[in-house]
Amino acid sequence: MKTPVPPAVLSRRFLLSAVVVMPALLRTNSALAQSDPLPSWNDGASKSSITNFVARVTAQGGPDFVPPAERIAVFDNDGTLWIEQPMYVQLAFILDRVKLLAPQNPEWKSQQPFKAVLDGDMEALASSGEKGLVELIAVTHAGMTVDEFAKIVTDWLATARHPRFNKPYTELVYQPMLEVLAYLRANGFKTFIVSGGGIEFMRPWSERIYGIPPEQVVGSSIKTKFEMRDGQPRLFRLPQINFIDDKAGKPVGINEHIGRRPIAAFGNSDGDLEMLQWTTMSGSGVRLGLIVHHTDAEREYAYDRKSHFGKLDLALDAAAVNRWTVVDMKKDWKRVFAFG
Amino acid sequence: MKTPVPPAVLSRRFLLSAVVVMPALLRTNSALAQSDPLPSWNDGASKSSITNFVARVTAQGGPDFVPPAERIAVFDNDGTLWIEQPMYVQLAFILDRVKLLAPQNPEWKSQQPFKAVLDGDMEALASSGEKGLVELIAVTHAGMTVDEFAKIVTDWLATARHPRFNKPYTELVYQPMLEVLAYLRANGFKTFIVSGGGIEFMRPWSERIYGIPPEQVVGSSIKTKFEMRDGQPRLFRLPQINFIDDKAGKPVGINEHIGRRPIAAFGNSDGDLEMLQWTTMSGSGVRLGLIVHHTDAEREYAYDRKSHFGKLDLALDAAAVNRWTVVDMKKDWKRVFAFG
Repeated sequence: MKTPVPPAVLSRRFLLSAVVVMPALLRTNSALAQSDPLPSWNDGASKSSITNFVARVTAQGGPDFVPPAERIAVFDNDGTLWIEQPMYVQLAFILDRVKLLAPQNPEWKSQQPFKAVLDGDMEALASSGEKGLVELIAVTHAGMTVDEFAKIVTDWLATARHPRFNKPYTELVYQPMLEVLAYLRANGFKTFIVSGGGIEFMRPWSERIYGIPPEQVVGSSIKTKFEMRDGQPRLFRLPQINFIDDKAGKPVGINEHIGRRPIAAFGNSDGDLEMLQWTTMSGSGVRLGLIVHHTDAEREYAYDRKSHFGKLDLALDAAAVNRWTVVDMKKDWKRVFAFG
Repeated sequence: MKTPVPPAVLSRRFLLSAVVVMPALLRTNSALAQSDPLPSWNDGASKSSITNFVARVTAQGGPDFVPPAERIAVFDNDGTLWIEQPMYVQLAFILDRVKLLAPQNPEWKSQQPFKAVLDGDMEALASSGEKGLVELIAVTHAGMTVDEFAKIVTDWLATARHPRFNKPYTELVYQPMLEVLAYLRANGFKTFIVSGGGIEFMRPWSERIYGIPPEQVVGSSIKTKFEMRDGQPRLFRLPQINFIDDKAGKPVGINEHIGRRPIAAFGNSDGDLEMLQWTTMSGSGVRLGLIVHHTDAEREYAYDRKSHFGKLDLALDAAAVNRWTVVDMKKDWKRVFAFG
């Protein structure tokens, strides 16, 4: 027997079906909202190489499926996630810090490499070479606790401005790359920074700016020493290089900190060559190697084979051989920064 | 007007309410199921110190609330998560490996510290000291790629047996501590191993046995070198110590790998003293320091102040001063291992 259905029941039935169907509706809506996960990228081969890669490694039951635990993606920082011209941001920090500390160190006026910094003589600074740089790191990065250094970095970033854009450096991060970070994480990836820059220079802000927590930042480091001082434990920063996370050091740093092979690597310079090789040229399964090629002098900078910072020469040749994606910043990116 | 409700509607209404109520029911059931998150622990001060700590740091709006991102817990491995008597498991690996490689190295028969290993002369081995140990590490842990070493460790663990329990070492992990790991993770913690043992000795099995992924394992390491060989990138293990993650090295390792202060630390020996100090004695907010005291010669082993492996002396004194929990294995643990 078919019972006639009163309006109140219809309404309940509707409610019931809505409750049952709602999750599916929400999924559809969010799928629609996410139909372009990379809105700052122009359509083309670069963008497709990213979305195709993600589609393949996340397709359950597909031949290229990778379990979430193994979806490790590594990103260089300078020139890949944020600006590195007219000089590495950390070098700008060093120069500012030397100027700030100069009054307490009057001998610097006549002593290289400090004199070069105080005179703004970049040529003399460059000629002081790696030895000069290590001396500058010793006086600006050591001689305080790790907590004190984190505060020094945070305070500096709050006031320092980029000479051309007149913006805080933390706003000079590439919007298209922020989208890649978020897109990968939404697809089960764990995202890591693997940078030649100082690990403790990046950690105070990496979570806020990139959504990358301190434990997922790999970088260069100086030695620290644990000691009890006035009944309080502290880690004191020593003027000795511990590890250089650049070039052939990057796979070493990846192995030491992550302990598994990434399946995607993003870089922009010869400093990233070995990280890209390590990620894409061994092991089985699909891999993504990507190089940000700075081709946009108008919106940012154009540089590659002969640049002092972020030189891209060997890695550009290797990209062609290894089928790494080479992003043409001018053509592939709708916008470079979040502002403007 | 009140419409009489036909049975079919009742049934739908019931269905509807079930759909609406179900998630709440499931939550209640799972809360009941989790009413004892540490079933292998006897009730008492040790168990309460863990559950009270977790309740305080997870109480949203409470004075001791800690955001999930900052809920970092660090665990020593040998003697804290798995057995370390009659010798460290990794030392058993070294001895087996020397015996396996001896036929290709006939000179070892008359050369220390190898002779001591082949003769089973533990006294002569001990007297070869740290220099002897470094030589043994060089021949057993270096001279192969990182992938090859991971396979050597995995193969050894599959066949090696503990001399007293006649079980694989991966079954000689402490059931009560596995419950602590799972309980902390269920409450938003990220759990890390911070061990004096080799980082690459632990990573091949830490995820399967402890649920701790390779990137959350901190340990001692030797140097590795990246190179291209026959067009393939590889990381080759060198016979040089890179980092000793023990005693004052543990806070250094924590800072290098994690980059933030843990709020809970679990250890069992003087090797964990500085890690416990670093975790509990600085910064603001509630902290948990815990020491596993091996008091159960019947079910496992009883040792502390005079033990060669896992000596617990200074840290036991410091525990009283700093109000760290000292677990009495015999009294506090219902069971030690998952088996039996």
